Amino acid sequence: MASMDLTHLLQDNGSKIILYVWDGVGGIQTGPDSLTELQAARTPNADRLVAEGCCGLLEPVYPGVTPGSGPGHLGLFGYDPVAYQCGRGALEAVGVGFDLKRGDVAARLNFCTLDSRGNVSDRRAGRIPNEECKRLVAKLADAIDHVDRVEVHWTPVKEHRALLVLRGDGLGDGLEDTDPQTTGVAPLAVQVKDASPGTARTAEVIRKVLAQAREALADEERANMVLARGFTARPDWPSMHERFGVRAAVVAGTPMYRGVAKLVGMKALDATNDVTQNLAALTAAWDDYDFFFIHYKHTDMAGEDGDFEAKVTCIEEADAALPALVDLGPDVLTVTADHSTPAAMKAHSWHPVPALLSAKTARRDAVTTFNEVACIGGGLGLRPSTHLMPLALGHAGRLAKFGA
Amino acid sequence: MASMDLTHLLQDNGSKIILYVWDGVGGIQTGPDSLTELQAARTPNADRLVAEGCCGLLEPVYPGVTPGSGPGHLGLFGYDPVAYQCGRGALEAVGVGFDLKRGDVAARLNFCTLDSRGNVSDRRAGRIPNEECKRLVAKLADAIDHVDRVEVHWTPVKEHRALLVLRGDGLGDGLEDTDPQTTGVAPLAVQVKDASPGTARTAEVIRKVLAQAREALADEERANMVLARGFTARPDWPSMHERFGVRAAVVAGTPMYRGVAKLVGMKALDATNDVTQNLAALTAAWDDYDFFFIHYKHTDMAGEDGDFEAKVTCIEEADAALPALVDLGPDVLTVTADHSTPAAMKAHSWHPVPALLSAKTARRDAVTTFNEVACIGGGLGLRPSTHLMPLALGHAGRLAKFGA
Repeated sequence: MASMDLTHLLQDNGSKIILYVWDGVGGIQTGPDSLTELQAARTPNADRLVAEGCCGLLEPVYPGVTPGSGPGHLGLFGYDPVAYQCGRGALEAVGVGFDLKRGDVAARLNFCTLDSRGNVSDRRAGRIPNEECKRLVAKLADAIDHVDRVEVHWTPVKEHRALLVLRGDGLGDGLEDTDPQTTGVAPLAVQVKDASPGTARTAEVIRKVLAQAREALADEERANMVLARGFTARPDWPSMHERFGVRAAVVAGTPMYRGVAKLVGMKALDATNDVTQNLAALTAAWDDYDFFFIHYKHTDMAGEDGDFEAKVTCIEEADAALPALVDLGPDVLTVTADHSTPAAMKAHSWHPVPALLSAKTARRDAVTTFNEVACIGGGLGLRPSTHLMPLALGHAGRLAKFGA
Repeated sequence: MASMDLTHLLQDNGSKIILYVWDGVGGIQTGPDSLTELQAARTPNADRLVAEGCCGLLEPVYPGVTPGSGPGHLGLFGYDPVAYQCGRGALEAVGVGFDLKRGDVAARLNFCTLDSRGNVSDRRAGRIPNEECKRLVAKLADAIDHVDRVEVHWTPVKEHRALLVLRGDGLGDGLEDTDPQTTGVAPLAVQVKDASPGTARTAEVIRKVLAQAREALADEERANMVLARGFTARPDWPSMHERFGVRAAVVAGTPMYRGVAKLVGMKALDATNDVTQNLAALTAAWDDYDFFFIHYKHTDMAGEDGDFEAKVTCIEEADAALPALVDLGPDVLTVTADHSTPAAMKAHSWHPVPALLSAKTARRDAVTTFNEVACIGGGLGLRPSTHLMPLALGHAGRLAKFGA
């Protein structure tokens, strides 16, 4: 089913929608009598919402394709992640609140350790603490603020991660990563991967920036170089307000999720990765927005760690926050995930994610528990993630009748 | 969901995938207490794989559309059969091992019987034996080896079937069949159906070829003419290796299935329509390929014959071969069909086909038996056949994460 332009159907009836993402919540079983994390968890609140509403399974990007965090969320926001592609640099920039302008080129930096031969011995420089990251970034900013009439902006992110933004006329972003993705070899040379306008010139600038960074960091013990990944210009996408008529806000503690939400025009509310604080932030802004994306991160982290029990505990914490959201009286409340992160795989996976939709207008199905297997029998069926947003708008009464 | 280009996600992890096709296995019931052939059959091996894996239903071409053998298989190989269309002539040519070159135009011929008025009295000339087919083809080849500087190649296929290939510069394939698909009327005149380059000239050549063939066969008692179907140039499609990164092999005894597999770049292993021999051929080549398509033909033949009991027996034979495939240790094993062939209909049909996917990475659903009705409750849902290949690649770990 091709994507449909809904703009001519939009009507603002003042209704409110909450999208509550349990990051990476989908799992798999590992044997005949084993359960998924969600099957093992006690989720009385989600179960009640399923029993009174409807559910199904969402396929994030494409059958068999494992989504990164950006694509996984874009699908839930109603943006086909194959059509809306964005590199890590721009996501990271928006996520840390850097005011990326059109024409800027951003890249994600990792501080790394080079050995005496110039080979990478640690791609994360021992995961240096945040304070160390700030000190090193200040050092770089002091040493390199422009190259060839191009402004060079340095921003600390977290641990070994930083952001590099170039600002100037006629820059391009068709550059390969310099991160070799392995140790024992030198950082990769800056290479052009496509002939997009300005890319050749930008490659020259980046070569100089990285050479100067190596000089500036030469006397550091651990973080004596940076690796660059995901060179990207800011994408110029239509906002959720333009496409779906909603004033949208994001409550997410991790820069990446805030970042992707801001790329589709969401306003970022103050957030941490503490669910209670995030509920308070959402509640305080309740009157100011129509659509709230609230993100729960810990499920994904436990999955990535391969810690089944921890993931179960996190799911139960995420579930415990549901009554506070219900109490706000949203017209539509959806709970789902951006992708699966089975503890058994210690990684994101392609498996469809369970989804529930609670609304007065929902048609109840026969499902009464919220998990991957039960949701197979749900009334929403198995469908692409991009269907969730139009379904939410429809259940919220925000879409007018199509045709006479 | 539009088709996604997976090439930039491919990673070769050495994993192996088996696609086991039970040709035409889908059926329908004929009354309140009746079963499909698959419901009636005992399939303990497929049932066990379903119980430990996941299943669903695949729709081969489009809702309500009955697939021929070519389109049915192309979908399973991950090629949208509406986008990848190929006539019978090219399929037949590749299937019999004729080295079809780019620019050749092939057609399937049926020897037929014309009565004294020149009307078709038997469209298959009494299904003449193979030896008779060879003799007649030799006679034609002797009489007609070129027309208007175009080479004319004749190849026996089986019984009343033969292959005609034209080789020369500037040929086109936009021609209608001359087979009237009924008896009591004359063969159809050679007609141009589209204005593709070279087609008008090719029509002239074919008119002369068929007129000369009628002369050459005039003294035959039964096979005194040929009917031509499916004029086609060799399609120029990307291979499975190019699209999906797998070295693929086909084990199929019938030329048509080998042919369509070779059109997407599979290597043909020695094969018959005996499942035990075919298992041996597959096993012998296990180390040389990543993807194996093994075809079981008899289910379809029994369905076409309307023989419910025979089809049940064939299904049980196909099922009995599963342990040998499991023992090879494939990372992903899928069992499905190219289309349904309900005995009750004695023909191919549009009904979705059951599909099971067995892999360590599969998410188990609640289904424990392999049939059309049980698979409705499977975790793979109801989806186009073209999704099977990306799902197999994903479960085999052959697709990298999409996006950051």
